[in-house]
Amino acid sequence: MRPSGRQPDQLREISITRNFTKHAEGSVLVCFGDTQVLCTASVDESVPRFLKGAGQGWITAEYGMLPRSTTDRMGREAARGKQSGRTQEIQRLIGRSLRAAVDLKALGERTITLDCDVIQADGGTRTASITGACVALVDAIEHTRAAGLLEQSPLLGMVASVSVGIYQGTPVLDLDYAEDSNAETDMNVVMNENQGFIEVQGTAEGDTYSREELNAMLDLADQGIQQICQIQKQALGG
Amino acid sequence: MRPSGRQPDQLREISITRNFTKHAEGSVLVCFGDTQVLCTASVDESVPRFLKGAGQGWITAEYGMLPRSTTDRMGREAARGKQSGRTQEIQRLIGRSLRAAVDLKALGERTITLDCDVIQADGGTRTASITGACVALVDAIEHTRAAGLLEQSPLLGMVASVSVGIYQGTPVLDLDYAEDSNAETDMNVVMNENQGFIEVQGTAEGDTYSREELNAMLDLADQGIQQICQIQKQALGG
Amino acid sequence: MRPSGRQPDQLREISITRNFTKHAEGSVLVCFGDTQVLCTASVDESVPRFLKGAGQGWITAEYGMLPRSTTDRMGREAARGKQSGRTQEIQRLIGRSLRAAVDLKALGERTITLDCDVIQADGGTRTASITGACVALVDAIEHTRAAGLLEQSPLLGMVASVSVGIYQGTPVLDLDYAEDSNAETDMNVVMNENQGFIEVQGTAEGDTYSREELNAMLDLADQGIQQICQIQKQALGG
Amino acid sequence: MRPSGRQPDQLREISITRNFTKHAEGSVLVCFGDTQVLCTASVDESVPRFLKGAGQGWITAEYGMLPRSTTDRMGREAARGKQSGRTQEIQRLIGRSLRAAVDLKALGERTITLDCDVIQADGGTRTASITGACVALVDAIEHTRAAGLLEQSPLLGMVASVSVGIYQGTPVLDLDYAEDSNAETDMNVVMNENQGFIEVQGTAEGDTYSREELNAMLDLADQGIQQICQIQKQALGG
Amino acid sequence: MRPSGRQPDQLREISITRNFTKHAEGSVLVCFGDTQVLCTASVDESVPRFLKGAGQGWITAEYGMLPRSTTDRMGREAARGKQSGRTQEIQRLIGRSLRAAVDLKALGERTITLDCDVIQADGGTRTASITGACVALVDAIEHTRAAGLLEQSPLLGMVASVSVGIYQGTPVLDLDYAEDSNAETDMNVVMNENQGFIEVQGTAEGDTYSREELNAMLDLADQGIQQICQIQKQALGG
Amino acid sequence: MRPSGRQPDQLREISITRNFTKHAEGSVLVCFGDTQVLCTASVDESVPRFLKGAGQGWITAEYGMLPRSTTDRMGREAARGKQSGRTQEIQRLIGRSLRAAVDLKALGERTITLDCDVIQADGGTRTASITGACVALVDAIEHTRAAGLLEQSPLLGMVASVSVGIYQGTPVLDLDYAEDSNAETDMNVVMNENQGFIEVQGTAEGDTYSREELNAMLDLADQGIQQICQIQKQALGG
Repeated sequence: MRPSGRQPDQLREISITRNFTKHAEGSVLVCFGDTQVLCTASVDESVPRFLKGAGQGWITAEYGMLPRSTTDRMGREAARGKQSGRTQEIQRLIGRSLRAAVDLKALGERTITLDCDVIQADGGTRTASITGACVALVDAIEHTRAAGLLEQSPLLGMVASVSVGIYQGTPVLDLDYAEDSNAETDMNVVMNENQGFIEVQGTAEGDTYSREELNAMLDLADQGIQQICQIQKQALGG
Repeated sequence: MRPSGRQPDQLREISITRNFTKHAEGSVLVCFGDTQVLCTASVDESVPRFLKGAGQGWITAEYGMLPRSTTDRMGREAARGKQSGRTQEIQRLIGRSLRAAVDLKALGERTITLDCDVIQADGGTRTASITGACVALVDAIEHTRAAGLLEQSPLLGMVASVSVGIYQGTPVLDLDYAEDSNAETDMNVVMNENQGFIEVQGTAEGDTYSREELNAMLDLADQGIQQICQIQKQALGG
Repeated sequence: MRPSGRQPDQLREISITRNFTKHAEGSVLVCFGDTQVLCTASVDESVPRFLKGAGQGWITAEYGMLPRSTTDRMGREAARGKQSGRTQEIQRLIGRSLRAAVDLKALGERTITLDCDVIQADGGTRTASITGACVALVDAIEHTRAAGLLEQSPLLGMVASVSVGIYQGTPVLDLDYAEDSNAETDMNVVMNENQGFIEVQGTAEGDTYSREELNAMLDLADQGIQQICQIQKQALGG
Repeated sequence: MRPSGRQPDQLREISITRNFTKHAEGSVLVCFGDTQVLCTASVDESVPRFLKGAGQGWITAEYGMLPRSTTDRMGREAARGKQSGRTQEIQRLIGRSLRAAVDLKALGERTITLDCDVIQADGGTRTASITGACVALVDAIEHTRAAGLLEQSPLLGMVASVSVGIYQGTPVLDLDYAEDSNAETDMNVVMNENQGFIEVQGTAEGDTYSREELNAMLDLADQGIQQICQIQKQALGG
Repeated sequence: MRPSGRQPDQLREISITRNFTKHAEGSVLVCFGDTQVLCTASVDESVPRFLKGAGQGWITAEYGMLPRSTTDRMGREAARGKQSGRTQEIQRLIGRSLRAAVDLKALGERTITLDCDVIQADGGTRTASITGACVALVDAIEHTRAAGLLEQSPLLGMVASVSVGIYQGTPVLDLDYAEDSNAETDMNVVMNENQGFIEVQGTAEGDTYSREELNAMLDLADQGIQQICQIQKQALGG
Repeated sequence: MRPSGRQPDQLREISITRNFTKHAEGSVLVCFGDTQVLCTASVDESVPRFLKGAGQGWITAEYGMLPRSTTDRMGREAARGKQSGRTQEIQRLIGRSLRAAVDLKALGERTITLDCDVIQADGGTRTASITGACVALVDAIEHTRAAGLLEQSPLLGMVASVSVGIYQGTPVLDLDYAEDSNAETDMNVVMNENQGFIEVQGTAEGDTYSREELNAMLDLADQGIQQICQIQKQALGG
């Protein structure tokens, strides 16, 4: 029995609110249950130095948690003067995942920065971030196209993410904090809307996991992500 | 004529939403027009090293802006590895202001940290932060009292803040960004509910200001802050 | 009774020594009683990046305390690897105050950096810094003019600063350390020689202060600053 | 055809040299073809603060590349003043993987630090690091036992790692740099000697990958890691 | 011919002013010609962690240059967030040199920190620093003895320093900046009053130097340092 | 009697292995007894900013110790976020020493970076680094010449280094760790193959040293360095 009473293959309630703040070209509040992340997409008409003259654009991401998004207050990274290894790992994952959603050549020489800031954390902040950032990215691309800067959309399709794991011996979908902090195995999966894998990261927390368990988790992730892609499309008015 | 059409002595619409997030002992979303700040109060049952054994508590504050709370994206302070001088100046001001709301001896040997994170900026983020943080502080004190850790409230009364300035030659109350970025003089005032001054910070941006202009701004601030204290009390269900 | 035996409206002995060191375009040792600050002005024939091509100059300031300028040794900021919030706050204040002394367009595309280093501290280091830096700035401008780089002086007039406060219930002028560390209210005022306000920063240290007390402090600051402007002019041989 | 002429399921030549340097409790030079990593294990008779009194030990890892281990010289992280996100990601992975090799309670209140320093890089430095660090860890545990500090070995078995990927449409084992820099998909797998999964990290570099490709890569990794565990055991004189 | 007109074996005018500032236990302004360094000695009744319980004291030093002590303004190390390699090298040299002046066991478990801050630079700041710091150290030791904390002086004798070099083919004593910046060889020598060597650091700037040149420079240093020790003793009223 | 049983004027066994790693233009493993340092030379076809357009090249060096090159594990400088004063001092010395081996004008507008990384430490790591780096430098220059980028060699001759000291009252050559950690005086000498001095750095660790002892140490260093230059030349196939 899951702490939340959900079925093993049941997602939390997922909501996606666009235009959550007014300045960004894309601004989305994404909620996976009590996990709330503000994802903004900012368009900059230049590229990082390593891409100057390469005839392509770039997608990058930054991630942060508000100090009291968590049960106990976390030290503010700006005050400590550096981002933790976990933060860097997550923002690298978000950037890599969203680059898979876009034809960078078709994007042209511009950069879209995805800022994912966790307002409230209850497990799965990185998967919610990727899911919300994809919608913010779509809005930012539309904004750029509406401004006459892009002729056609460089978007390759939706990208979404969900966590799966082994909780008390059972493979489960979309772990909340109560499950995540006790799971034997935790796996984050990123896929596109055509069932293509972008990233699989599975970690044994205590005991190791078998090939069968791995397969069962991938099955759950696959069907969960296809549902989430539908929610993204509905939010986009599709 | 003010860009927003407001009268010179007219505040923006101010709203205060308590319990905005679930983990913090106090969690308030404060809006001064389009300026939105999330203020959380976290209680820690210890004091900083310099107060060990001094028989009193401490109130401190941290301030941050989400990268895309502003018109153009600002670099993330955690990524740059340090807080700007402006950030430090503001968080020192917030901490000092809220310490004036509390009898630190009566608070006992505990620390309350006020995190003020700007979700959306449109001028006056520091005055909104102080105003919202005071309400979060009240909630955190109540939470501590309800938990049986405090016998009586160390609260001395409400503290609130507002900006005033000279815009196109006229003293005005509660400047939004359109005014703030063009004002000749910008002053932030912090007072308590009994018209006592806690902090006055007035800066000539271009030309200097006269004693008469200073007096007119203080008059506006005084009546504005008394209105804001009423809004705080209503939010607290008073 | 003030610890120093001064009258409430009496300044400490103020001395201004020009050409204190030989390399800088302006070099001033300013003493407010036992507070001694070395203020140098350095002229650089370029502007910061954010002003490139803007057709104007810039004035900026940096502030530091020698480790043993204080009663107890302070950690060296260079060794700790960052400037404290207090240091940043003060150097931003000095820069802002001195920019009010100069027509930045008339200065042309050059930068003057004011370094204020406290040799010995006894209260009021920031007000002494502003006062001394103004004289160093005048010398640096003259130096630039003498070198044929400036046709006419961009100087708008003298800028000076003093602290005022409430000490044992009485408003007093120019607090030394013995008073400053015990004052109920501490206010720093920056004005020009024509009684125009540039900056007012008043902080209640313990109890709040009333409008009447604020007015009394401003009266003291006004007359004190006019005296200090005379001392600046005498030092400049005027 | 692979650039090295290897079969798709063929490992590079792997060598493990123990006691490579003289000071560390475990010191191993591991080579996967031209990739050379020095792995040392250092035993410290204390635990990090967060484990004080928890009655268990800790395994942690640090990773670095010598500046000219790579084709072009990389900036030295010590000189730049911070470790890159990639470095932190890798050292977190190494630490997590090796903790799965040990019963931390049975280790007792001591810490073993695994330093993996890349002498020469030709692809697969993180998988070589994990593989070599496991042997250094075994030696350090034996050293501790020989010193009479441990009664029985807390070792749970060998842990090893290899990379797999899709290169020119074909799943291949143990990619070298020529393959790695052109692979469509890159996956790092960590397993124990009993075919249990500890970590799976698969990233689509360009196109996404299918479930069939994922399965083919996992098959390759599984048999490769079992071979590597044999090499580890031979090196340990088993 | 030397730029200053001095003889090859002639020191600059050296002055030592004690009690230059009022807070430190020892405070000395030392001038070697136009080079001016403020040296303070601060006594702390504790030792660094690595000496806890070792039954001895410690002498350490920090060095800094005011930004405009030099011909062109140098960036402030506190603002750049780190001390340069040159700064660290010099402060390590000063500390090492002064530790040779004291019996650390007889000093007892206390630390004396020597801060050497260059007010004006004209070559030889490190040798002036060592020379002035020794006098400040003597005053701090006397202060500690007068306070009843030390029964007998741990001082072993005076330590002083001077630079020598090869300038236009001739060995010269006590180089000023005009010589130093053009010398073929630059050597700093630290000795005690009994002609014992504490430190010799000689660097070929362009061409190498011969054993004969080395000997000639050491002869100059030896006689120069004995003169400087006399000046130190006179300043100490001996 | 020396701990190693060597004669006072006897070097440790010195070996120099070229082409130790494959990517660098010069790559040398140098061993002075158990001290092992990997020295690589990297050629970059540009110069640092301060030499742009100066018509000359540059030689610079960086130094590091692997965390477990020492008896006890040292903290990793990359993890601590800064290089120690000792590290900076050593890498400045290496760079300065090797610049004396090359005609920088003849080198042309290119930079050679010498990375000296200590694999195993047993005293004398800086002198081994200089010695090995010189051979790597020669190889890198030959590589550049072979690539047709340099017409003639800018090499001025070999540069080598050795430590000398006073151990139990006797001057000895090439101290190992057992001697170094107990020596009364420690001196590092850098010379070229023509007996020209490049650097002499002698430090009294406990007692001071006399002119006679200084002379005896220089005699030892002179003959030791001439032997080491022969070993360098043999390694270079000369």
